[in-house]
Amino acid sequence: MSWRGILHYAWKSLLYYLLLAVAVYLVHDHFEVAYLSIPFNTVTALSTALAIFLGFKSNSAYERWWEGRKIWGLLVNYSRAWTRQVITMVIPSEEAEAAAVKELQRRMVYRHIAFVHALRVFLRLKHAYNITAQEEIYEETNIYTDIQAFLQKDEFEAFYHKNNPPNFLLELQGEDLRQAFKRGWVSDYRFVKLEDTLVEFNNIQGMSERIKNTPFPRQYSFFSRVFVFIHASLLPFAFVSEMGMATIPVSVMISFVFLALDLVGERIEDPFENKLEDVPLTALSLTIETNVKEQWGDQDFPVKQTTQEGIVL
Amino acid sequence: MSWRGILHYAWKSLLYYLLLAVAVYLVHDHFEVAYLSIPFNTVTALSTALAIFLGFKSNSAYERWWEGRKIWGLLVNYSRAWTRQVITMVIPSEEAEAAAVKELQRRMVYRHIAFVHALRVFLRLKHAYNITAQEEIYEETNIYTDIQAFLQKDEFEAFYHKNNPPNFLLELQGEDLRQAFKRGWVSDYRFVKLEDTLVEFNNIQGMSERIKNTPFPRQYSFFSRVFVFIHASLLPFAFVSEMGMATIPVSVMISFVFLALDLVGERIEDPFENKLEDVPLTALSLTIETNVKEQWGDQDFPVKQTTQEGIVL
Amino acid sequence: MSWRGILHYAWKSLLYYLLLAVAVYLVHDHFEVAYLSIPFNTVTALSTALAIFLGFKSNSAYERWWEGRKIWGLLVNYSRAWTRQVITMVIPSEEAEAAAVKELQRRMVYRHIAFVHALRVFLRLKHAYNITAQEEIYEETNIYTDIQAFLQKDEFEAFYHKNNPPNFLLELQGEDLRQAFKRGWVSDYRFVKLEDTLVEFNNIQGMSERIKNTPFPRQYSFFSRVFVFIHASLLPFAFVSEMGMATIPVSVMISFVFLALDLVGERIEDPFENKLEDVPLTALSLTIETNVKEQWGDQDFPVKQTTQEGIVL
Amino acid sequence: MSWRGILHYAWKSLLYYLLLAVAVYLVHDHFEVAYLSIPFNTVTALSTALAIFLGFKSNSAYERWWEGRKIWGLLVNYSRAWTRQVITMVIPSEEAEAAAVKELQRRMVYRHIAFVHALRVFLRLKHAYNITAQEEIYEETNIYTDIQAFLQKDEFEAFYHKNNPPNFLLELQGEDLRQAFKRGWVSDYRFVKLEDTLVEFNNIQGMSERIKNTPFPRQYSFFSRVFVFIHASLLPFAFVSEMGMATIPVSVMISFVFLALDLVGERIEDPFENKLEDVPLTALSLTIETNVKEQWGDQDFPVKQTTQEGIVL
Amino acid sequence: MSWRGILHYAWKSLLYYLLLAVAVYLVHDHFEVAYLSIPFNTVTALSTALAIFLGFKSNSAYERWWEGRKIWGLLVNYSRAWTRQVITMVIPSEEAEAAAVKELQRRMVYRHIAFVHALRVFLRLKHAYNITAQEEIYEETNIYTDIQAFLQKDEFEAFYHKNNPPNFLLELQGEDLRQAFKRGWVSDYRFVKLEDTLVEFNNIQGMSERIKNTPFPRQYSFFSRVFVFIHASLLPFAFVSEMGMATIPVSVMISFVFLALDLVGERIEDPFENKLEDVPLTALSLTIETNVKEQWGDQDFPVKQTTQEGIVL
Repeated sequence: MSWRGILHYAWKSLLYYLLLAVAVYLVHDHFEVAYLSIPFNTVTALSTALAIFLGFKSNSAYERWWEGRKIWGLLVNYSRAWTRQVITMVIPSEEAEAAAVKELQRRMVYRHIAFVHALRVFLRLKHAYNITAQEEIYEETNIYTDIQAFLQKDEFEAFYHKNNPPNFLLELQGEDLRQAFKRGWVSDYRFVKLEDTLVEFNNIQGMSERIKNTPFPRQYSFFSRVFVFIHASLLPFAFVSEMGMATIPVSVMISFVFLALDLVGERIEDPFENKLEDVPLTALSLTIETNVKEQWGDQDFPVKQTTQEGIVL
Repeated sequence: MSWRGILHYAWKSLLYYLLLAVAVYLVHDHFEVAYLSIPFNTVTALSTALAIFLGFKSNSAYERWWEGRKIWGLLVNYSRAWTRQVITMVIPSEEAEAAAVKELQRRMVYRHIAFVHALRVFLRLKHAYNITAQEEIYEETNIYTDIQAFLQKDEFEAFYHKNNPPNFLLELQGEDLRQAFKRGWVSDYRFVKLEDTLVEFNNIQGMSERIKNTPFPRQYSFFSRVFVFIHASLLPFAFVSEMGMATIPVSVMISFVFLALDLVGERIEDPFENKLEDVPLTALSLTIETNVKEQWGDQDFPVKQTTQEGIVL
Repeated sequence: MSWRGILHYAWKSLLYYLLLAVAVYLVHDHFEVAYLSIPFNTVTALSTALAIFLGFKSNSAYERWWEGRKIWGLLVNYSRAWTRQVITMVIPSEEAEAAAVKELQRRMVYRHIAFVHALRVFLRLKHAYNITAQEEIYEETNIYTDIQAFLQKDEFEAFYHKNNPPNFLLELQGEDLRQAFKRGWVSDYRFVKLEDTLVEFNNIQGMSERIKNTPFPRQYSFFSRVFVFIHASLLPFAFVSEMGMATIPVSVMISFVFLALDLVGERIEDPFENKLEDVPLTALSLTIETNVKEQWGDQDFPVKQTTQEGIVL
Repeated sequence: MSWRGILHYAWKSLLYYLLLAVAVYLVHDHFEVAYLSIPFNTVTALSTALAIFLGFKSNSAYERWWEGRKIWGLLVNYSRAWTRQVITMVIPSEEAEAAAVKELQRRMVYRHIAFVHALRVFLRLKHAYNITAQEEIYEETNIYTDIQAFLQKDEFEAFYHKNNPPNFLLELQGEDLRQAFKRGWVSDYRFVKLEDTLVEFNNIQGMSERIKNTPFPRQYSFFSRVFVFIHASLLPFAFVSEMGMATIPVSVMISFVFLALDLVGERIEDPFENKLEDVPLTALSLTIETNVKEQWGDQDFPVKQTTQEGIVL
Repeated sequence: MSWRGILHYAWKSLLYYLLLAVAVYLVHDHFEVAYLSIPFNTVTALSTALAIFLGFKSNSAYERWWEGRKIWGLLVNYSRAWTRQVITMVIPSEEAEAAAVKELQRRMVYRHIAFVHALRVFLRLKHAYNITAQEEIYEETNIYTDIQAFLQKDEFEAFYHKNNPPNFLLELQGEDLRQAFKRGWVSDYRFVKLEDTLVEFNNIQGMSERIKNTPFPRQYSFFSRVFVFIHASLLPFAFVSEMGMATIPVSVMISFVFLALDLVGERIEDPFENKLEDVPLTALSLTIETNVKEQWGDQDFPVKQTTQEGIVL
């Protein structure tokens, strides 16, 4: 979030601060309405409460964002582990089955790439409660059709119409494991071990959904914005009698500091919303796709496309 | 919590703040009782202590609420895993048993939906120590009879009279696993693996009960309310000599900020109480029911009913 | 901790605050000893440091108490799991052994109830470093003899003379598992699985002992009390010149707020000491006893005895 | 840390505070050097920053100390579990081997006591970066020769010359498990289970080494001390014009409060350094030795030796 | 970070503070431009917000650094465990294979040393977003060619050209395990157990990459620097009217305290960047190499090279 970014989100507020400060200064000094001034202590009393709110909010917003990042970090780790486990633990019981095993392994490895992309798309769908009036600088589009390449044709059809598409892919993986077990390609024990890794993916998906579907309690966001507004509105009245014209730059500057604190937290508190400040799901998905393909021995690595700012979302 | 919400909970306090400020102003300015004023420093000394209390309380309340949400997030994840494991790991030892296995699987999958709904009802029962004088805007009703559809008739009868009904359902699941093991449908190893998933449900239930049955230490709630009241009562005395009539709006506004901080925490600190600000147990239960039915291949998904505000509790 | 509770613990300090404030007021105003007054800034400088200490202490005390509660929550969860596992996983290898298996299961289930009660008693024994001069409003008694009913006679004898009695019960459970394994009632795999649950109990016991035996560093408790005392002693000197008689109620009130913050933390920081504010070990033990008996099919549930305040310790 | 303790560490600083305050008072009041006084606001600005530093430092120091304590708590738990597992899971395949199995079990159980003591000694060795100019009130000596009694003679010789002696003992335990497996005394599955417990000991040792070898970032310790010094040096200048002679006791008292905050954190931030405020490794080792011997059936429990203050380090 | 260190990073800012304070003093006092002064309260209002930012930043920076250290602590623990497991769990099925097993074990143990060094080099590569204008006091070089000694020649060739070289080494370990399983040197169960330890390494690598590739949100770093600058720029204006010449040392000193707080956090927030304040990856890698070689029985331990300050990076 550079100056350009902050101005994009804050210009309306800044304009308000400026106009208010100018108005208070003019009314107080030129029309000599002395009782417009209030003692500075009133603002001090408020800024303590504001400090608590903003500190708490920054911290919680950062923790949500960082938890989102951790979850997708786990997805990186277990994607590599899953690929290695599929390659090393599914073993033909006789030589003649080698090709069939290879085909099954390939299907399971590519279906996992599909799962990763599907989870990205699923998380970035807009819900009613995520839509805000705020216009974004940059927005990603995430659609399921990119995933077609990693699935069998009929699997993709079924997948596309499911209520919870990524979960459906985990079911298919489970089904393939059951078949592999029945044909003796995995022992009882290795069957369960691979299934354990699928449980990790259940957890990763569910944790991501939790952050997506449970926004930071709206009352906190709402009140921090209201309190920043009240605080900024009182500032020029508190400064005007002592500082005269200097009221204008100083009160705008101080109001801006509090606003920036509020904004920075707000931009990261919901990390799966196609925004510049998101956890970079697209970049992470492409990293996983590259790692998994390298492990499987394929070379057609995807290319990361960066925004103008050099960011991959 | 919108303005409507906050006014619902705060109007009595706000009225008190207003009347007190008006009274102090009238007595001080019109009857000229000068010694009514106290220096502002006294309030500063108090607001530091109040800041500590409220910051600590907001943080702890949010953590309780978020822990409650995490626990039910785990229930989502393991419900999906349990369904997949029952489907893929229970395997007939001979072809003739396929129908019997299918029936057992169906019973175990639907009994799990019953467990989820039973846990919701169990957590939302009112206990003596949860009843407050506060009237709620909206209240959910949660009763065990919805669960009848997911259980065998005799199972429901026994379930209904148990001291701890959800725990009883886990016992039944264990009993079915034992039978499946005896008939050779699960190996020794898969038996224990499925039992492991039941232990996860024990943990989920127990963690939910812990939050339900151990309210945030009452001394903290009690004193934060008392301190907010003392602070608000001192404010007009501290302002009146310097600010005159402006005392009224400013002291009400600042008192309101501290009250809001206290209230917002208090509304979420007990997250299983049929309130608007609860962890949305009903919505989560219906999500799980939908996911599990989709995995099993059924299509009769439940419909989520929203409140006027568009919230599913 | 109601008003009655706080007065029980704080009356000596409050009396001191009152007498000091009266004395300072009289000497300053009536004998006109003007240099008794100090500027308010000195108190401000101190209250910042005090704020850090008290905030840090409240937080740490609450975390210790909540960790204690979490540990006993785990004991609830794993007690239910252990009972189910003993019932479903110990399987007679031939029909004739059914009664012997049943008897073994019963012994292991009831011995677990004994373990829970034994851990409660063990944790609530008074150690030299836990004894304070503070007289308690209510105190629990916890003695080992209640446990006799859940153990074989000779087991109880041996148990009673051990250095670490609860740990001895886990050894006996291990010994019984070894016997069950030797007779073929549990497979190699189920043997180890049940042993895993015993390791959970080792962890639960050890974590409880850690909190019991490692009090919150005494230097923090000591200095927070000293600093609250210094702060309260300076307050009337700082107020007296500006506020006159109002010094008395205001300085007592503000001192009380800081004292209350200190006390509330202190009452919960050691959660296994037979106090009203303890983690309610007795209530939790009785809940476990009820759950385990319900799972085993017995009906003689214990009755919870409440104190006058309706609290089960 | 009693008054005696705090004076031991703080007397030099207190003397400086006293002399400075006296000097400032004399120069200002007696020689009437008025411009020596600075406004109180400068100190306020500094004390905010100092508050952040000290709060952050107290918290981090306590967390390091408490993490150290938790790690050794785990060692208590897994020592009991290991002993029980060795006793119940190593089973002679035929009657004739009973004595040999017993001997192996004894070796493994006593070698574990050796591991615990060895880890204590290893952690309390002084490293260059742990040596400070501070003289200690009490210091423990920890040497490897106490451990001789728990090991075979040749094992002790090899152990004594290793780069990492405790890790060597875990290797020997692994080697004995391999032998037990080869002779059929543990099954494949139980072999791995016991090895899992050894991995816990790897983790416990490694976590302890992490805290020992990575001191709290020196820049934080260094600056907090510097800032406390700057703050204390400014205080008498800020007080002298308003308070006259009262400057001396009040500025020393306030400086002392900040110093105490800094010191209390510093004394516990490195918890394995043979200090009074250490995590009590010796006491914990002796508790483990007692528990393990009780489980094995031996009665020669070690005696805990207390310091004059009644503390076992 | 000693005085030398802090001056290296801070001298430009300090020079600015000094020149500004001198200029403000001269203009105000000598040219008597009285309206240059602003009331101190404006700075107070700002320093609250700054306090929140810096406290939050210190805390988060320390947590990132400490998490980095914990991750590499896990690598120490599991490296020791992996070595022991390879040595004890891979067992020749017949005597004739002993030498082949020994060779396989040696390859897997040394390949693990290669993995550790490869991860160090991989993490310390410079990325575009890690390059700052700041010149470093000391920089490490980390290159892959040191690793040649621990790998087979052809393995090193393939390794060197991979997109993710450390992950490739884990694949090779998996492949060797599969071979060992096929030849009967590890059972089904031990195969999976060793594979589990590889999953730990996946996690360790992935967690390290997460910290490396996801810098602390740039908006926080950016604004804390801006706010420290604004705060420092206002200070001399706030002091000059009351303090005259003393403005110069006092405002530089206070500005420096805030700057130091900002800098200390910033230096540790990205812990894998070849800096003096890094998590000491080189020292840790050499410790692991030494431990692993000692376990394997080799004596050619690497020598740690210290910088002039006696630090191993």
